Amino acid sequence: MNAPPLRHGIIGTGFMATVHSRAVRRSSGVLSLVAGATPESGQAAAVSLGARAGAADAAELVASPEVDVVHVCTPNNTHAPLVRLALQAGKHVVCEKPLATCPDEAAELAGLAAAAGVVAAVPFVYRFYPTVRHAAAMVARGEAGPLWLLHGSYLQDWLSTPGRSNWRVDAAQGGASRAFGDIGIHWCDLMEFVTGHRITALVARTAVAHPERAGSVVTTEDGASVVFETDRGATGSLVVSQASPGRKNRLEFSFDGTLASLAFDQERPEELWVGGTNGNRTVLRDPAALDPAAAGYAVLPAGHPQGYQDSFDAFVADVSRQVRGDQVPGLPSFADGARAARITDAVLRSARTRTWVEVPA
Amino acid sequence: MNAPPLRHGIIGTGFMATVHSRAVRRSSGVLSLVAGATPESGQAAAVSLGARAGAADAAELVASPEVDVVHVCTPNNTHAPLVRLALQAGKHVVCEKPLATCPDEAAELAGLAAAAGVVAAVPFVYRFYPTVRHAAAMVARGEAGPLWLLHGSYLQDWLSTPGRSNWRVDAAQGGASRAFGDIGIHWCDLMEFVTGHRITALVARTAVAHPERAGSVVTTEDGASVVFETDRGATGSLVVSQASPGRKNRLEFSFDGTLASLAFDQERPEELWVGGTNGNRTVLRDPAALDPAAAGYAVLPAGHPQGYQDSFDAFVADVSRQVRGDQVPGLPSFADGARAARITDAVLRSARTRTWVEVPA
Amino acid sequence: MNAPPLRHGIIGTGFMATVHSRAVRRSSGVLSLVAGATPESGQAAAVSLGARAGAADAAELVASPEVDVVHVCTPNNTHAPLVRLALQAGKHVVCEKPLATCPDEAAELAGLAAAAGVVAAVPFVYRFYPTVRHAAAMVARGEAGPLWLLHGSYLQDWLSTPGRSNWRVDAAQGGASRAFGDIGIHWCDLMEFVTGHRITALVARTAVAHPERAGSVVTTEDGASVVFETDRGATGSLVVSQASPGRKNRLEFSFDGTLASLAFDQERPEELWVGGTNGNRTVLRDPAALDPAAAGYAVLPAGHPQGYQDSFDAFVADVSRQVRGDQVPGLPSFADGARAARITDAVLRSARTRTWVEVPA
Amino acid sequence: MNAPPLRHGIIGTGFMATVHSRAVRRSSGVLSLVAGATPESGQAAAVSLGARAGAADAAELVASPEVDVVHVCTPNNTHAPLVRLALQAGKHVVCEKPLATCPDEAAELAGLAAAAGVVAAVPFVYRFYPTVRHAAAMVARGEAGPLWLLHGSYLQDWLSTPGRSNWRVDAAQGGASRAFGDIGIHWCDLMEFVTGHRITALVARTAVAHPERAGSVVTTEDGASVVFETDRGATGSLVVSQASPGRKNRLEFSFDGTLASLAFDQERPEELWVGGTNGNRTVLRDPAALDPAAAGYAVLPAGHPQGYQDSFDAFVADVSRQVRGDQVPGLPSFADGARAARITDAVLRSARTRTWVEVPA
Repeated sequence: MNAPPLRHGIIGTGFMATVHSRAVRRSSGVLSLVAGATPESGQAAAVSLGARAGAADAAELVASPEVDVVHVCTPNNTHAPLVRLALQAGKHVVCEKPLATCPDEAAELAGLAAAAGVVAAVPFVYRFYPTVRHAAAMVARGEAGPLWLLHGSYLQDWLSTPGRSNWRVDAAQGGASRAFGDIGIHWCDLMEFVTGHRITALVARTAVAHPERAGSVVTTEDGASVVFETDRGATGSLVVSQASPGRKNRLEFSFDGTLASLAFDQERPEELWVGGTNGNRTVLRDPAALDPAAAGYAVLPAGHPQGYQDSFDAFVADVSRQVRGDQVPGLPSFADGARAARITDAVLRSARTRTWVEVPA
Repeated sequence: MNAPPLRHGIIGTGFMATVHSRAVRRSSGVLSLVAGATPESGQAAAVSLGARAGAADAAELVASPEVDVVHVCTPNNTHAPLVRLALQAGKHVVCEKPLATCPDEAAELAGLAAAAGVVAAVPFVYRFYPTVRHAAAMVARGEAGPLWLLHGSYLQDWLSTPGRSNWRVDAAQGGASRAFGDIGIHWCDLMEFVTGHRITALVARTAVAHPERAGSVVTTEDGASVVFETDRGATGSLVVSQASPGRKNRLEFSFDGTLASLAFDQERPEELWVGGTNGNRTVLRDPAALDPAAAGYAVLPAGHPQGYQDSFDAFVADVSRQVRGDQVPGLPSFADGARAARITDAVLRSARTRTWVEVPA
Repeated sequence: MNAPPLRHGIIGTGFMATVHSRAVRRSSGVLSLVAGATPESGQAAAVSLGARAGAADAAELVASPEVDVVHVCTPNNTHAPLVRLALQAGKHVVCEKPLATCPDEAAELAGLAAAAGVVAAVPFVYRFYPTVRHAAAMVARGEAGPLWLLHGSYLQDWLSTPGRSNWRVDAAQGGASRAFGDIGIHWCDLMEFVTGHRITALVARTAVAHPERAGSVVTTEDGASVVFETDRGATGSLVVSQASPGRKNRLEFSFDGTLASLAFDQERPEELWVGGTNGNRTVLRDPAALDPAAAGYAVLPAGHPQGYQDSFDAFVADVSRQVRGDQVPGLPSFADGARAARITDAVLRSARTRTWVEVPA
Repeated sequence: MNAPPLRHGIIGTGFMATVHSRAVRRSSGVLSLVAGATPESGQAAAVSLGARAGAADAAELVASPEVDVVHVCTPNNTHAPLVRLALQAGKHVVCEKPLATCPDEAAELAGLAAAAGVVAAVPFVYRFYPTVRHAAAMVARGEAGPLWLLHGSYLQDWLSTPGRSNWRVDAAQGGASRAFGDIGIHWCDLMEFVTGHRITALVARTAVAHPERAGSVVTTEDGASVVFETDRGATGSLVVSQASPGRKNRLEFSFDGTLASLAFDQERPEELWVGGTNGNRTVLRDPAALDPAAAGYAVLPAGHPQGYQDSFDAFVADVSRQVRGDQVPGLPSFADGARAARITDAVLRSARTRTWVEVPA
């Protein structure tokens, strides 16, 4: 604990910038600089986020000797140039997902990060729920038996009505995929992380709830249904939607093995449901009951709910540990971000061609 | 109520025969005869089910003037010949699902029933939960808006372990499809009943949890994942399994429209979840709260749970009403049974060819 | 099964008469006669319930040689005279709860029934949920450890609004206690049945939500809160209400021992929650998972919900077995009905005197 | 936001010190000093909590010009002397509950704080769940109608086994009441906060699950059952336990009015259940759906769970606002802490005398 605190800079002034800033503070890090679209917006955000100062622009921020870790929290189409800038400056980088809007660019960034030898992470933060870590440990220990059926959904409702729109709806800013690229990849990342399986092929149908929003033709999907297969022979299914009324942020999975099924719902993350033929049980986020690999992420006693911000805080804490030289298992990297881009690309291709398509490893 | 009671005969002596016999009794019908594989088993079942007598065999039962309605509750591969026998004798028929093990035979039986002018029903009994009827009424009234995303699952666990087997596992007795043909069709029937949509095309992957059971190679699927599209442009997804530990009989659906999502879980049938962007509510099986088309199926006050047998009883009561000449809306017919066979066939073809296939109307 | 079917007569034509008639039919019994307030109403009910005939009045019904078991389903203040009539005629009797509106009369009826040597039962039917039987078996085997804290509630909402009224609101017809006498005694019976503890003393406060209903001053309570102690040293708590909006028939308990807590909710009777310090599990109503004493009441496979009517059916089936000479454990008797009256009386006395009062054994 | 950050000092090095320190950091405050039982423990905690320095002892900490707000996070019997010390030094004080172990001392501290004119707060942090604030707003607007029945429980299981003990079990350190004084007062505070009712009289029974722990006779209660009445005529019921296996920190309430029932479970704080006779709904912690008085405490979008630490953070943020001169509604003060001591005292007296006792206003 004698090391000086890590110094962070955040590019972006939206809601996710706030979430990152809280996690920086919880990690005992210093929030040095914030950069916005204009010097004024960066300055204003610096005040509201409690940063030491605002940067004139992203270039100034990444060049600052006061910044060790750059957080990219801007619209999707700007991720790649900003990440390149930060990597060129030799900085560690946390880039919001999706890492890039096409697989080639995502792969390029992952390569640059590897070459730079810095920490380069993507906040697939659902990995940081203690119950999720416990599920992964149970699978690794074989307690569920071979997993043969992997299924679930990620449903939101903020785009249920045709009057709602957002920069993500516009493929030019958000990328060719919207619902899948924004949230579907969270589910896929979580599935691969917990099960150790990798999606090898898939078939998908994308769907639009509202062909027009705010007077413009919608070119990105509101939802997608996917069937997939994995390198270990499992069959999978995923439903993604941003227009399912009443579902705020319902990421849920059931990973069914021959000995047990493991089910999780992000809206009730304190519980992991473990189904067995002779009875079902609930594993609570109880430090005393969790696998050691999970218990470290339980920072409150059982029954005192941890939530989304706690997971985000744990992610940034792990980034910080990795920056300091620890080998931190389970930290989602640019390689994971690049994989997400390949899966997204496969979903769009399958939907377009109405065929099964392979997903490059 | 002055009409004499309807007289029923049951072919089969297994568990479903018991369920049918309870429903006959609840309907104030008379259980005249039971036929088993041997005269002795028919006699024994007649005693245990409280029938007036045992029949020597199915032929004697269908020919008896004491029988108005024949219930076929035997293994799948015997449905077609027994139904033909009953129709030839001019009897009304209730045939357990699947109506037949291939679409051509199912279509033939539907045609014979139509020609005979009798009541010919398949117990897709989940239609008879009052909350399901209420969901259908809400959709019909447009309260959910256009449905664009239809998803759910039907999961069981009784074949989770490799030691478990059953005549259904053998394609010769149960048909080429097991999990889908046995339970997947329940979900599809329920979806089409509630939404009014019809599946027009699908892509599926079937899966096996245990390649061998009880020393024999398994030739029928333990599960299936399906993506489909409907005649009204919706996208759908269904996961079916008979080997998901802890899931006893979990049929659940979410039908998501632009105004509301409607979700139901057969293991908690007293509740219909209605999601909205501004708040979610639960419609209870409360006679005072249900649509008139549903309230008639609520035969107990709210909070006094109705269950599976109550739904089965309502099905047989509706069969009886139809026999007496009423036009009963929503009674699942042989035509519905034939449709189920076409969908099952499409699932198997899609899984075999790894392509989207069309589902004949 | 060679015995001739038992023949039942029902006095009363309201909703509970329907529930009893269904249970008679399910038990393969014969519903011989129905008696109402007038010969005409008895005749009409006989038709609607499918009885063989209507009786001119209760006296004719109890005297009929076609009736083995008399069911008393009339307003509370008529229970005692009708039960006396039936017992004098040597008939077995099922009397709706409360057995009588004061403890002396209830004790007298219990004594008369014992002297008559007939079966005399009160439908405390919640005992007949298989999960409740399983809970009782767990307690008896010591799996929960000594129970030290017993708590729960029984909440309804049908009298939430001041416009709602009913004969039960009138003390002259329903008895001095309404909410407690009508539903509180269900909870107490269930607690004593499952735990084996007996309430020895209690302190209570009764409450009224609406001092007037339909223009009349309300003299019976809408709810009650009770603290009690048991012969084995446990502490208990019960909340009863008929005016808690949204609670249709929510009887729930948690019986907490030093090894486990057992929790049940009548609105979700397929599940028994078993809490442990190292994890919680759910016992499903699965014939394969239940204690043998409970499994016999599971007449459907797990996941096919049983409900209230199934429990009522099981109660009448057990009455029938007892009539035929079996010793049926757990059948709620007139002695149990008399005990309920003593507890009700104690609640009213405690509320009136604002003191702890003893409950006679 | 131009004001310099508030500077905090924490006395105590246990788990609650960690929770306080996180909240200080989230509020952008500075954690200046930490004091422990020894200079060494204070120093060690300063490192682990990220404070600027360790204090030699509590006296040094409260005297430091680097400290604006003193947090007392020590065993119960030390609260009073430490609070006196801090108030004498003119500091703002946050004191863990119970404020004191007897009502006189608590009243004295509340008086001293008032005389000092500083901010003096007790972390009744469950007030800071947004759904709780929404419930309070609904009650205030009359949406539930007059509340007539208030009931619930606060159950834990960390003392279920006789081998578990803790300084709280010892009356000399923890006070004469354990379960009620530790957690029962949370429920009472929350009830009075949400409903605006005040408990005027109560009757209670305390109970012990294990008469001995770790070889010593237990003199404090493991649980309590309480019936109470309020100044507005409502009837209440509360069950408290620290030995209910499987219940980790289950504070739940149902406040039943003539128009609606409002139910909350602290283990699932994202949801407020609103029962109505015509249907039930769930209010989610959705900034768009909450009352303005509640929405400000929703710092994440709906579906991204907030938890216990978020509530604690909000409490410390409100303390900070109050220190800066804002009038912050709903901040739990020493007056609230003194009231909790009076209720605790009444519970013990009632249990001892087996009578109803009045609770001083």
